[in-house]
Amino acid sequence: MVDRLKQLSFQVSATTPPPHPLDPLSASEIDTVVALIREKYAPVNFNAVSLDEPRKADMLAWLANPENTPPPGRRADVVCIAPQGKVYDGVVDLDKKEVVEWKHTPGVQPIITMEELQDVEHICRQDPKVIEQCGILGIPPEDMNKVYCDPWTIGYDERFGSNVRLQQALMYYRPHVDDSQYGYPLDFCPIFNAETKSIIHIDIPPVRRPLNKAPPNNYHVKSIEESGGYRTDIKPINITQPEGVSFKMNGRVIDWQKWNIHIGFNYREGIVLNNITFNDKGNVRPVMYRLSLAEMVVPYGNPEHPHQRKHAFDLGEYGGGYMTNSLSLGCDCKGAIHYMDAAFVNRAGASTVIKNAICIHEEDAGILFKHTDFRDDSTIVTRARKLVISHIFTAANYEYCVYWIFHQDGTIQLDIKLTGILNTYSLNPGEDTHGWGTEVYPGVNAHNHQHLFCLRIDPQIDGQENTIFQVDAVRGPGEVGSAENKYGNAFYAQKTKFTTPVEAMSDYNGDTSRTWEIANTNKLNPYSKKPVCYKLVSREVPKLLPKEGGLVWKRAGFARHAVHVTKYADSQLHPAGRHVPQTSGEPSMGLPMWIQETSTESIDNTDVVLWHTFGLTHFPSPEDFPVMPAEPMTVLLRPRNFFDRNPALDVPPSYARTPSQVAAAAAKSGCGCDPKPKGDGSSVLVK
Amino acid sequence: MVDRLKQLSFQVSATTPPPHPLDPLSASEIDTVVALIREKYAPVNFNAVSLDEPRKADMLAWLANPENTPPPGRRADVVCIAPQGKVYDGVVDLDKKEVVEWKHTPGVQPIITMEELQDVEHICRQDPKVIEQCGILGIPPEDMNKVYCDPWTIGYDERFGSNVRLQQALMYYRPHVDDSQYGYPLDFCPIFNAETKSIIHIDIPPVRRPLNKAPPNNYHVKSIEESGGYRTDIKPINITQPEGVSFKMNGRVIDWQKWNIHIGFNYREGIVLNNITFNDKGNVRPVMYRLSLAEMVVPYGNPEHPHQRKHAFDLGEYGGGYMTNSLSLGCDCKGAIHYMDAAFVNRAGASTVIKNAICIHEEDAGILFKHTDFRDDSTIVTRARKLVISHIFTAANYEYCVYWIFHQDGTIQLDIKLTGILNTYSLNPGEDTHGWGTEVYPGVNAHNHQHLFCLRIDPQIDGQENTIFQVDAVRGPGEVGSAENKYGNAFYAQKTKFTTPVEAMSDYNGDTSRTWEIANTNKLNPYSKKPVCYKLVSREVPKLLPKEGGLVWKRAGFARHAVHVTKYADSQLHPAGRHVPQTSGEPSMGLPMWIQETSTESIDNTDVVLWHTFGLTHFPSPEDFPVMPAEPMTVLLRPRNFFDRNPALDVPPSYARTPSQVAAAAAKSGCGCDPKPKGDGSSVLVK
Repeated sequence: MVDRLKQLSFQVSATTPPPHPLDPLSASEIDTVVALIREKYAPVNFNAVSLDEPRKADMLAWLANPENTPPPGRRADVVCIAPQGKVYDGVVDLDKKEVVEWKHTPGVQPIITMEELQDVEHICRQDPKVIEQCGILGIPPEDMNKVYCDPWTIGYDERFGSNVRLQQALMYYRPHVDDSQYGYPLDFCPIFNAETKSIIHIDIPPVRRPLNKAPPNNYHVKSIEESGGYRTDIKPINITQPEGVSFKMNGRVIDWQKWNIHIGFNYREGIVLNNITFNDKGNVRPVMYRLSLAEMVVPYGNPEHPHQRKHAFDLGEYGGGYMTNSLSLGCDCKGAIHYMDAAFVNRAGASTVIKNAICIHEEDAGILFKHTDFRDDSTIVTRARKLVISHIFTAANYEYCVYWIFHQDGTIQLDIKLTGILNTYSLNPGEDTHGWGTEVYPGVNAHNHQHLFCLRIDPQIDGQENTIFQVDAVRGPGEVGSAENKYGNAFYAQKTKFTTPVEAMSDYNGDTSRTWEIANTNKLNPYSKKPVCYKLVSREVPKLLPKEGGLVWKRAGFARHAVHVTKYADSQLHPAGRHVPQTSGEPSMGLPMWIQETSTESIDNTDVVLWHTFGLTHFPSPEDFPVMPAEPMTVLLRPRNFFDRNPALDVPPSYARTPSQVAAAAAKSGCGCDPKPKGDGSSVLVK
Repeated sequence: MVDRLKQLSFQVSATTPPPHPLDPLSASEIDTVVALIREKYAPVNFNAVSLDEPRKADMLAWLANPENTPPPGRRADVVCIAPQGKVYDGVVDLDKKEVVEWKHTPGVQPIITMEELQDVEHICRQDPKVIEQCGILGIPPEDMNKVYCDPWTIGYDERFGSNVRLQQALMYYRPHVDDSQYGYPLDFCPIFNAETKSIIHIDIPPVRRPLNKAPPNNYHVKSIEESGGYRTDIKPINITQPEGVSFKMNGRVIDWQKWNIHIGFNYREGIVLNNITFNDKGNVRPVMYRLSLAEMVVPYGNPEHPHQRKHAFDLGEYGGGYMTNSLSLGCDCKGAIHYMDAAFVNRAGASTVIKNAICIHEEDAGILFKHTDFRDDSTIVTRARKLVISHIFTAANYEYCVYWIFHQDGTIQLDIKLTGILNTYSLNPGEDTHGWGTEVYPGVNAHNHQHLFCLRIDPQIDGQENTIFQVDAVRGPGEVGSAENKYGNAFYAQKTKFTTPVEAMSDYNGDTSRTWEIANTNKLNPYSKKPVCYKLVSREVPKLLPKEGGLVWKRAGFARHAVHVTKYADSQLHPAGRHVPQTSGEPSMGLPMWIQETSTESIDNTDVVLWHTFGLTHFPSPEDFPVMPAEPMTVLLRPRNFFDRNPALDVPPSYARTPSQVAAAAAKSGCGCDPKPKGDGSSVLVK
């Protein structure tokens, strides 16, 4: 075994430069970790082998002086499941080639992997009780190959607790293998034991709903061609970058338009952006230490049993990285694309790779700024470019397209597009949905639901000591007619500093267009004398609709408020807890627990993390079926009082004429008019 | 004169097809109108000559049966100013060649035209009192050519009333002709009488602020080159459409991807979209009768006199059409562009044309929908295209870029980008802004302000009889633990029907993610049994911050609520009144008056208009100076229960594989993997 490790180690050093401390584990590092664990603790199944990210203090020391500081060591965070479902959390030191932590963690269930999900359908098809239930709905035993299930984590079911590893099987039927099963939901729900690989219970509704008799509602090519065919009137739009991309990659560090970003990836959050800096006239200024989508929850709004169990934590229960699509040029992205792969471990301990997991590309972004002087038509117009770092993951029926976007003016934007297919349930002819869902097709009930995402913002606005302010647009004092506000037009930005985590639990307020500022109060803008900051601008911020004290409220503590702020702690990455499946919410893991522990600790002018929950409430309609047009959401992080002027003034304009140039051109041509810019979009700079 | 009219008439018929009844007046029609007015009423100055839009009843009759119904006649809406500032409103029948209405309207001021704005600076420079004030600030008389002013409507100043046509001159200085004057605001404000072309008053602040001594803060090419130069690391992105555009123009009617839209334009609203329909599998379904930005107001939040006067109604006081930019390929738009010109009248009665006033183009819009089956990687991914109909107008310092966007899935989107330059005022060294503004550069105070737009939605959701519902996402009844809501997860869409205009005055509610549905209750979706509708989704909806009873509140009645609904009336196009400059707000013109007159009239299942006010509150920061990176806003109109399935399923996919195709490919290749799509983005359809 020692020989094998040496060999692996040699391969790495011979073919690749040393990894950046924040690089995900390579396939060979994963192989090393697996070998080390196996040597000491076999037999185990592997649930996750992922980078154990360096402590922030170590990283900052290295980043401050990389030449003379040794890089933080490479460590792996390991989760294994041993026989009898015993869960082990471990840490492997890759430099020392040593398992440095190994601990049995009782009463938890780690993430459900794709492999585990794949087990369930097969078992369901063979289970006599499932076959019996199918028969009741009108599916004969010989058609069990047409029965499908989307296996979901069980959420939490108090009848079964947390000790047995479970999935709930949302059942469907396909008349033909190519039909969409979401048009044929079945009304019962088997419970699957992952340890015994058996169905331990079936939830059967009091009123039965026989198999839907409606014709298939498909979106595949044959069905579209048979029902009128494809549109033929879309002419091509070609997007080409003949000189290639405008960014440079140094390993996983990207350099683009003054931005510098390390692009990480893990099985859980998917893309992680680290040490984001902006080169402000030669001064490399820290902006964000770490940005990621840290968690999400999708509660469904039908109170009838057992639909309360439908509230997937897609990141913490399945993994946004594990579910990531392999992307394709021309389909998912256009232009000149740089792809990155993602390496994971499988259950058996082999390293696996998702090719093209991350897409990095640029897009034209319309007008960056423009002004025309009405006196003389002197003009400047400058086009914008944006950098998009994206991945797409499929969570059973739904697709989440995640776009991290960087702008030349210093703005960071997170766009999420929702597409894919509605989760559906069966409905009898004439049955009332009671408002908990919509009949999107005969016999198909799509339940109300929310998509709530938790954006973890670990800022470093000109350093690690940051302070969070809530900002509300409010009316000034003084009634109309008073000396101080005679015409009633006074208004201003009311800023509230958060000094403790309890104070910082805050909700969105649409009335005041509430935003939150991530400020460095130690550094004032030279002109405005206001602290340098990045402002969180987010407008899709619904309340968590499941009620206080209820199941989702207890389990998804992060979603109770739009904003939580905690003092930075290396271990606090997962706002619903490290192991999310089958948590009861008693106590609420993650954010609520951390805040309880530090409720009065100062978060003023220190290293803080802002957790922002945003999303949307989806009341389905037939337009969303059988596959849903993408619905977009946007969150912005905008520099305010951070730069001393528009930081994108040095982007070459498409067209620029000063008043004296306009006058000179008019004098020359004698026509009093300004020559028009060239039509090819190239820069026209008159000096 | 009769001969001359005949000649004009002949020219029109010989060279162009007859206009669509909603086409803007052509230059030759404007010439005809001017000639007819002059013949009877000279001498007058022309303020506006614009299409008097046909009555809706006449239009609908013609649209229903264009072959056998005569088109509604061509009429012009005319505003003139006669000597002594007497305002005349007139109507000219272009078919009969006759002035059919001509009426003196006392006590109003029509729109301030660009020509009138251009007068003020010249007069200011020569006015002894202005020269004196400049001297006090440190500008010698010989430098008066370096003094500039942005002439604004006066808003309303009770000292001067509405009978005298006035402008306020916001004063600036340029050290050099190419310097941006917004870095050198002057502290006094002359009042200009447009009739006498003279300065009748100067508002002088109690504390004086001498001319700013800071060096220029410029954005022109020379200054950027002198301060570090331009970025050199942006490689080109070329967007080409080798086969041309995917739309067809029939006059001003565009046909694109099942959408059919008449594109109008007027001096006031700019782009007007009429008779918007969607071809739903051969059934041409009415969606919107008329869409436009009908008004806006930009209140500033500094209560110190005379800043309360800064609350421009840019559409009603200056005209979004009159201020429209002439657009250029590669600068304002990329790809294959179709431009349209705009014809206006000038003060002297000559027709004028803004070339390329409207830009029509397509853009790739990323993923339209995608789904991958986790079982076997069978996949569909389809890219979206959007149609953008845009114009850009310059309102003194600010630029408003207006994009009307149509999507293949039936969504209509209005995007507005704000760019240009902050309105600025002077600030002494060390002077406190009192929170009413931000010092964006030494000596430059940019005041807090709001941009509030009024979107006029005249719907025809499957016909003219429509009903508006307010929709709130709310928790279901029953406490946690109750039989009806045991786990607390119940939530639903609470719909409130508006039955009268008073009931319909409604505000945004971020807590409930409030939307509004424009429904046809006579037509239910065949599957959901819910009324067909379009949903207004708008998230940037600040409250009007000027207080109730104050000047802006009185004048900008439309901005008091996010939504107003009125019963359709042909004459009700302008929610702040027909003539906006110098209205006192007593009474409040436009919407408040119409609603008062019809407060209890039924708006249930009838021809209604929805007025939506949205926008943002802007607390400036140095990043916005000296020219502001574009800040975007979005409003969506989304079909809900309107179609019986995703209406974009027939957009050809970029890649599509069914489960049986995946299996067949795996059997063929023997590798169990699916061949990857082609990299060029062309469609890969396996049948």
